[in-house]
Amino acid sequence: FCYDAWCGVAHGCTRKLGMKICGFLQKNNSLEERSRIVSSLKERTAKTLLSCDNIGGDARFRRTETDFSNLFARDLLPAKNGEEPTMQFLLEIVEILTSYIRKTFDRSTKVLDFHHPHQLLEGMEGFNLELSDQPESLEQILVDCRDTLKYGVRTGHPRFFNQLSTGLDIVGLAGEWLTSTANTNMFTYEIAPVFVLMEQLTLKKMREIIGWPNGEGDGIFSPGGAISNMYSVMIARYKFFPEVKTKGMAAAPRLILFTSEHSHYSIKKASAALGFGTENLILLNTDERGRVIPADLEAKVIAAKQKGYVPMYVNATAGTTVYGAFDPINEIADICEKYNMWLHVDGAWGGGLLMSRKHRYKLNGVQRANSVTWNPHKMMGVPLQCSAILVRERGLLQGCNSMCAGYLFQPDKQYDVTYDTGDKAIQCGRHVDIFKFWLMWKAKGTVGFEQHIDNCLDLSAYLYNKIKNREGFEMVFNEEPQHTNVCFWYIPPSLRSLPDGRERRERLHKVAPKIKAMMMESGTTMVGYQPQGDKVNFFRMVISNPAATRSDIDFLIEEIERLGHDL
Amino acid sequence: FCYDAWCGVAHGCTRKLGMKICGFLQKNNSLEERSRIVSSLKERTAKTLLSCDNIGGDARFRRTETDFSNLFARDLLPAKNGEEPTMQFLLEIVEILTSYIRKTFDRSTKVLDFHHPHQLLEGMEGFNLELSDQPESLEQILVDCRDTLKYGVRTGHPRFFNQLSTGLDIVGLAGEWLTSTANTNMFTYEIAPVFVLMEQLTLKKMREIIGWPNGEGDGIFSPGGAISNMYSVMIARYKFFPEVKTKGMAAAPRLILFTSEHSHYSIKKASAALGFGTENLILLNTDERGRVIPADLEAKVIAAKQKGYVPMYVNATAGTTVYGAFDPINEIADICEKYNMWLHVDGAWGGGLLMSRKHRYKLNGVQRANSVTWNPHKMMGVPLQCSAILVRERGLLQGCNSMCAGYLFQPDKQYDVTYDTGDKAIQCGRHVDIFKFWLMWKAKGTVGFEQHIDNCLDLSAYLYNKIKNREGFEMVFNEEPQHTNVCFWYIPPSLRSLPDGRERRERLHKVAPKIKAMMMESGTTMVGYQPQGDKVNFFRMVISNPAATRSDIDFLIEEIERLGHDL
Repeated sequence: FCYDAWCGVAHGCTRKLGMKICGFLQKNNSLEERSRIVSSLKERTAKTLLSCDNIGGDARFRRTETDFSNLFARDLLPAKNGEEPTMQFLLEIVEILTSYIRKTFDRSTKVLDFHHPHQLLEGMEGFNLELSDQPESLEQILVDCRDTLKYGVRTGHPRFFNQLSTGLDIVGLAGEWLTSTANTNMFTYEIAPVFVLMEQLTLKKMREIIGWPNGEGDGIFSPGGAISNMYSVMIARYKFFPEVKTKGMAAAPRLILFTSEHSHYSIKKASAALGFGTENLILLNTDERGRVIPADLEAKVIAAKQKGYVPMYVNATAGTTVYGAFDPINEIADICEKYNMWLHVDGAWGGGLLMSRKHRYKLNGVQRANSVTWNPHKMMGVPLQCSAILVRERGLLQGCNSMCAGYLFQPDKQYDVTYDTGDKAIQCGRHVDIFKFWLMWKAKGTVGFEQHIDNCLDLSAYLYNKIKNREGFEMVFNEEPQHTNVCFWYIPPSLRSLPDGRERRERLHKVAPKIKAMMMESGTTMVGYQPQGDKVNFFRMVISNPAATRSDIDFLIEEIERLGHDL
Repeated sequence: FCYDAWCGVAHGCTRKLGMKICGFLQKNNSLEERSRIVSSLKERTAKTLLSCDNIGGDARFRRTETDFSNLFARDLLPAKNGEEPTMQFLLEIVEILTSYIRKTFDRSTKVLDFHHPHQLLEGMEGFNLELSDQPESLEQILVDCRDTLKYGVRTGHPRFFNQLSTGLDIVGLAGEWLTSTANTNMFTYEIAPVFVLMEQLTLKKMREIIGWPNGEGDGIFSPGGAISNMYSVMIARYKFFPEVKTKGMAAAPRLILFTSEHSHYSIKKASAALGFGTENLILLNTDERGRVIPADLEAKVIAAKQKGYVPMYVNATAGTTVYGAFDPINEIADICEKYNMWLHVDGAWGGGLLMSRKHRYKLNGVQRANSVTWNPHKMMGVPLQCSAILVRERGLLQGCNSMCAGYLFQPDKQYDVTYDTGDKAIQCGRHVDIFKFWLMWKAKGTVGFEQHIDNCLDLSAYLYNKIKNREGFEMVFNEEPQHTNVCFWYIPPSLRSLPDGRERRERLHKVAPKIKAMMMESGTTMVGYQPQGDKVNFFRMVISNPAATRSDIDFLIEEIERLGHDL
């Protein structure tokens, strides 16, 4: 074995370190030294050669100095000899991603590097979005990946507060990487045995936490809260008017749905899509903090009945989108029972609080619901998409949606086909949304989710207490928020002396959009704003980001003041 | 610098190789040799130390021998000092995934290691699916990841033919890893600027390929073909009866939908969900090869009109699920124009053929459709989920679904808000399905997709020609298949002499399920079967897997013969 062979060994392990060693051997030693080193290395070389490629019993790949400019997608697996370029390409991708992840958690980086659509479309420094007939080299593909991340938004950044879904959970991310590698489909046990069982067990656990006896009932993961809410309306209709499935809405009387004026717009979308019509969705009045007034529900139910309509479905929101309000479920449930209506609880945002012994009382009565939407991808920090629709009565989901497609759901399979979930869904193919959630649950335990949720609520209390009496801040509603939503106006000094009235309102309406635009241009933080009812644009701060700390809350307040001071 | 420091350097680069070197130094050299080696290494050490952690200008992480049994999710980022464990954990995950990927493409591995639900639920060798209150160590999480893959199905295996979506595209996979790392949401440009533009450009490209002038029109990526088809029915209804959105189905006359008896069951699901009723979905007769007979459509349209109903929507399938049949779009379009009906083309499975100059004639007339479903996650090999609904007339999607939620879609944002896509969707949050597809398109070019599709169709022709006259095989329909679907019975020797009749049919019906069960138990390959109409269980071979070769087709045939010979 010669000295070049030893270099080869080093190359085989990690080319870069190998090259360092070789370079060192070549440049820094006399011939005598070289031969001595080489002879002393000789004995073990063969074994090292093996063990380098076979550490831990498994072949491991190391990143090497690969020239991707002459490699193309066609050179990757399943191409002949595609294994090495495939591994090098994936490791290079991982390098890009891990570098991005490190920066995401680094407060000295920007949340985003904002560009207008026309700027990105014109091509930023060679980042060309157009698709072409001919392939690009993998070198270009890697550049495109870097650019895609560069011009995107770091939703896991400790100062990203813009949506209900924020944060980047590492275990969840690992779960999602595995999910895409497994690349399968939830419709049958046959091709997703493990994932189907994980879904079943996790849904049961969620039903237990809701409080349904023995976790009985049914459910499915859907592509998001809006679809989950749509399921709830469909199932309710099937329960009361199963003939609609075959005969259409003509077979039912005029059906009325109820939801809060503060509820999520997906209930309205569902009423349009499913053929009820948005006019047959009655909006309920809320109190000052955005909670449904039960007496208003009952009055409107009675009014609908008097017109000869059939009140069928009530959505109670557990955690409204803007105010974070929890409707009083028990009082609504009483009315639903009295008038024989379906009670759905939209806990897309607030469902996570069920994991907290301290905060779950806000959903008191949820066990009386007929169905519940609960999005782990919001308050529980699971990567997008992960939403569940849970149903108390078993069989309705299947009854409502089954069409018995012979090509998928053969009764003569060799296993127990009741595990096939596809016919419960309005989808056919269904992405595996369960694994990342299951893995996070394993890794954190129920207590880990509880801690995360308690922390977020503590942080929002911290924010609320800090700004409620602070000069230049005005709360949209009084009292401590129920969820992590803190809604407030920032009043620039120039508006502080203005009397309440049209001018002040009009000027105040423009403040939040201006501050938000400056935030995005400077890339320092992101928080949402919107009007609500007769209230002009205000900030809605929400905290679901596990990376956020009090210092980030402080930063946000100061940043709003800094940007808004001269408006 | 001493010899221990050099060990430290080696550790810093890749701990395992470092340990080898250290071990070598410790065990195999006399003290004199050691000191000589060390002194000769000395000079360059400081530089090496730096360059190890800083190769290529960026800090790079190397996998080290990390003890995960004392690490928990709470030790990962954003935890203090969480960067090192986070990187080590992710690299370990990548090791698991790349090892899985290598095995996936290795024909000597099984496609699956089948277990019944009760076996997996009881816990396989410590693989416990139950969720607990307390966290598990990251060591256990890594074991769970390995087990999840172990007991799953390798959908990218060259001999996996079970579904319309098969194969594992490496660039697509990289795209999906990046997507989950970016973890954002498609509803606004604000938080998904790059992805929103990629979606827009890609949809335009798809519309150009369909043949709509200048690629004009609209569209959106949805969570699957069933939802895309549901969109088409909703949009058609909105076009003809926009008042249904507000007033419900009661505002419309009795509306009739038409689709082939061979079409996908999602059209039926949509008719149930959207309030039409499955009875108002009329099934059209097909010819022997599963293509709609246009005259039957016209007769049924006339019959419906005579009853006073309103024929509104026709679905033409481009590539049926079982036979792979293409309905004659032009002739159907003539009828749709004549009777003022919406024409939807469900190209979930067959749409990919538009990328092939050789095969796209099978969709002749598609440019006359009002809407088209096209799933890149099927024939184009994009990882699940990736489905597009494309609409010829601009504005309908928005009109049909918009609810103008103030908290998301503020008109006073600083950028051009027409780029916000959320209000077109029935979803609110929407997963980023575009990136992997865009990246694959960049990497392969249009020609790369074309090649893949032509190859798959060549392979299916190879299969067809090989078995059409082979003893023991019987084709379900004659002539070369239009798509990659090859439908056939295997007739075991014991049935070959039986006369056609009830006994033979009953026995033949059981053959495919038995062979399939044995395939799954032995894990060698997977192919689907089903009955269709009055035809007893037959195999449906489909080829979308880029890893499949003629040898895999040969293997499948021989495997069926081997397993079925003695039935």
